[in-house]
Amino acid sequence: MRIIGIDPGLQITGYGVVDYKLPRPRLVDGGVIRLNPRQAIVQRLCELEKELDGLFEEYRPDVCAVEELYAHYAHPRTAILMGHARGVILLVAGRRDVRLEQFAANRIKQAVTGHGHASKQQMQRTIQGIWNLPEPPSPPDVADALAIALCCGRLISERRSINDALAGR
Amino acid sequence: MRIIGIDPGLQITGYGVVDYKLPRPRLVDGGVIRLNPRQAIVQRLCELEKELDGLFEEYRPDVCAVEELYAHYAHPRTAILMGHARGVILLVAGRRDVRLEQFAANRIKQAVTGHGHASKQQMQRTIQGIWNLPEPPSPPDVADALAIALCCGRLISERRSINDALAGR
Repeated sequence: MRIIGIDPGLQITGYGVVDYKLPRPRLVDGGVIRLNPRQAIVQRLCELEKELDGLFEEYRPDVCAVEELYAHYAHPRTAILMGHARGVILLVAGRRDVRLEQFAANRIKQAVTGHGHASKQQMQRTIQGIWNLPEPPSPPDVADALAIALCCGRLISERRSINDALAGR
Repeated sequence: MRIIGIDPGLQITGYGVVDYKLPRPRLVDGGVIRLNPRQAIVQRLCELEKELDGLFEEYRPDVCAVEELYAHYAHPRTAILMGHARGVILLVAGRRDVRLEQFAANRIKQAVTGHGHASKQQMQRTIQGIWNLPEPPSPPDVADALAIALCCGRLISERRSINDALAGR
């Protein structure tokens, strides 16, 4: 199962592509789409659509995983702008019939580091450790996107094990 | 100059198409795109893109006008979801190189009714009066979208008059 995790933003959108299989998920790719903050939001959204659609075309993910929305945001205006980028991401996934999964931020941190309140640095180091990377993934948006993909893979395979157990397989 | 005003939402998106020319702007069309609240947000965004793209194809607007984002929202989560729809609207306009204009909510109300804090009902009645419609446009999202288009036309033509005056025309 190939999963693309995406961490949306109007300046930097992180993405991480993971082939989730046991015993060891494979890291396929990770990176960021940088949008020019000097450009108008309309141009940035068009650029984001183009870049994302290119990634979906190249990697053909089965699942697209994003963070769930919270109930409260410290900076509502920034959150609404993030919502613009998130809308475009969901649209690109939806048009290609890619299944969408959403996870709460603390569940992602918990699944990856064991701590629901892990710091950005801790997330970067854990992701570095899991795939034995020479450096922590940088900027942190890449680590976050890879963590979302990893969490998604784990939770889907847990769900499967439970279903299998219930079905007596 | 043909203007499409849009009032975004994930349940109802209002639109209003106006040919702005003096002495009297012409009402071309107004209506709503209703999205099925039982559907997942991904499906709704795909539907919104399709419907909007159809409107842009049919009416070929020169300008797309939306309300500016505020600094504060009473319901941040709803506002972020609105941001998803707004992102798709901006994307559809941007892909077609349609010029985007944004206006603060109170400026729109001021331009249309003369009062920056006009009620929804007052907006509906004023729009009804301007075009001598048999009924107030309903739901209020249509009136709001028409008001955005009208405000946009007025402010652009004011800007033009000022520029003409400065240029001594």
